[in-house]
Amino acid sequence: MARQSIEPSRDPADYAFAHRLRTRFAETDAMGVIHHAAYLAYLEEARVAYLRAIGHPYDEVRAADPGGDTGSSGADSGNGRDFAVLEASVQYRKPLRFDDEVEVALVIGAIKGTTFQIAYLLTVDGEVRATAVTVHGCVDSRGRASRLPSWVGEAFAS
Amino acid sequence: MARQSIEPSRDPADYAFAHRLRTRFAETDAMGVIHHAAYLAYLEEARVAYLRAIGHPYDEVRAADPGGDTGSSGADSGNGRDFAVLEASVQYRKPLRFDDEVEVALVIGAIKGTTFQIAYLLTVDGEVRATAVTVHGCVDSRGRASRLPSWVGEAFAS
Amino acid sequence: MARQSIEPSRDPADYAFAHRLRTRFAETDAMGVIHHAAYLAYLEEARVAYLRAIGHPYDEVRAADPGGDTGSSGADSGNGRDFAVLEASVQYRKPLRFDDEVEVALVIGAIKGTTFQIAYLLTVDGEVRATAVTVHGCVDSRGRASRLPSWVGEAFAS
Amino acid sequence: MARQSIEPSRDPADYAFAHRLRTRFAETDAMGVIHHAAYLAYLEEARVAYLRAIGHPYDEVRAADPGGDTGSSGADSGNGRDFAVLEASVQYRKPLRFDDEVEVALVIGAIKGTTFQIAYLLTVDGEVRATAVTVHGCVDSRGRASRLPSWVGEAFAS
Repeated sequence: MARQSIEPSRDPADYAFAHRLRTRFAETDAMGVIHHAAYLAYLEEARVAYLRAIGHPYDEVRAADPGGDTGSSGADSGNGRDFAVLEASVQYRKPLRFDDEVEVALVIGAIKGTTFQIAYLLTVDGEVRATAVTVHGCVDSRGRASRLPSWVGEAFAS
Repeated sequence: MARQSIEPSRDPADYAFAHRLRTRFAETDAMGVIHHAAYLAYLEEARVAYLRAIGHPYDEVRAADPGGDTGSSGADSGNGRDFAVLEASVQYRKPLRFDDEVEVALVIGAIKGTTFQIAYLLTVDGEVRATAVTVHGCVDSRGRASRLPSWVGEAFAS
Repeated sequence: MARQSIEPSRDPADYAFAHRLRTRFAETDAMGVIHHAAYLAYLEEARVAYLRAIGHPYDEVRAADPGGDTGSSGADSGNGRDFAVLEASVQYRKPLRFDDEVEVALVIGAIKGTTFQIAYLLTVDGEVRATAVTVHGCVDSRGRASRLPSWVGEAFAS
Repeated sequence: MARQSIEPSRDPADYAFAHRLRTRFAETDAMGVIHHAAYLAYLEEARVAYLRAIGHPYDEVRAADPGGDTGSSGADSGNGRDFAVLEASVQYRKPLRFDDEVEVALVIGAIKGTTFQIAYLLTVDGEVRATAVTVHGCVDSRGRASRLPSWVGEAFAS
């Protein structure tokens, strides 16, 4: 199984893309801060925004991704793919609070076979709140490991 | 569209089934109580427990429901059904708190065509915390209205 | 107890404010649509955006609201308030899907004593997906009913 | 900052406690499996069940924990504590599905100063679905690092 091999930097300049979001009251907990599970949804929202920004919206990736694999003639041609989460790890450095405007920066790293990793930096007004890494595997609609769409390497390398 | 037409009783004796669950810390909010959106997941958990108790687990209903429609030869034979939520309403009477053991009582009512309604009473140690009603429509795997499985009327009437 | 007494219009022109948000993948369910409980978080996000837009951010309302009650000398002066949810009801008319850009329009109505109601209209590209009503009660930091801040009537009437 | 230093075993015999729960439909996503963020709530539910089982319910820990620190005379005496999550990491090995009955086994490890770690093994019918580690820091009601209650070392060592 793939294992986290990259270490998220705390310098925003090391990231390729940044997405801004606002924490919700529904995501707070009785400690008065954002519950730690909500961060995983923030990482996902940033991934989705990134795919949209590079011209490969995740709903198209999931549906069929015709623009990404025009030469494909494999058994799964015409089928969509999911970037399943194989591993996720978050380091909570300073709590997020209700109504914080969070910048979620991310960068792709360690593309290997059917998997890739993403590092994240979460800041509020430039102050680090959390870092994270997710490891993803490309799977077809039946959940079987599938090679990465051809555009992934190019897009992620730029 | 179906509209809520039943009124949830505050007397536990008026309910057909009761499911117990414990609130989670993840479901609290910064007001120190259970966030109001979590109640909808509690209602759903109770519905699922009820279907299991009457011998029609929801994953079977969704997968194929072979025991429910043996005579079916329609276009959707062999397909599962979902009990889509058409309407939900909750009255929050007294807050639920972290680690509360909640009894969610429910009773089916107002079966009409492809829809039915469920009334709920949420109590902790016999004290009313909330009442609720959900309105459901039976749909096939493509989301189209579908007649209720034959067992529904019988099961719900008992 | 306060009860929903207003009926949400399906005409966007009847609403005072609109907030746009994008559904998350984390909010989908195995039916392939947005889970019905997520709508309550959308309504809340729109309420919070509205309070910010009219100059009374909810975190200030919760913290102390000094700008709202300068003349207050009551037992709870200097204390914050919460707009607790007393009742919520949603009518799901057409499913929301992953990555939909949703416009959540809202309008305040039926201010009575310490309570008020809000009607909502959720649309995607002008098409109605859901309507909703929430009933709120103003409470102090101990959860006791508290009179509405003076700015509420004025702000909501405009 | 504390960092994960323990590796979760895949042998149930290595764990001190096991909690059973059932996945909810609300926790599924459009891939038809349990969304990866829900696992963090499962880990938390198991932690809370464990604290209850060893006689230190988390709501008492949070409220005051009088039985745990009778000799305390520090500035925070009489105040509760939280076991804040400093780090969480999950390895998803095989998807959980709707209505799965999950056994969440856990064991405490690496108690150091004000922090401790927990390893988790999630299985369904004996089959491994995920492993995880959380790192916790003991904090007082203001979020400042606070020494661990005296019962922690004893309880966790047994």
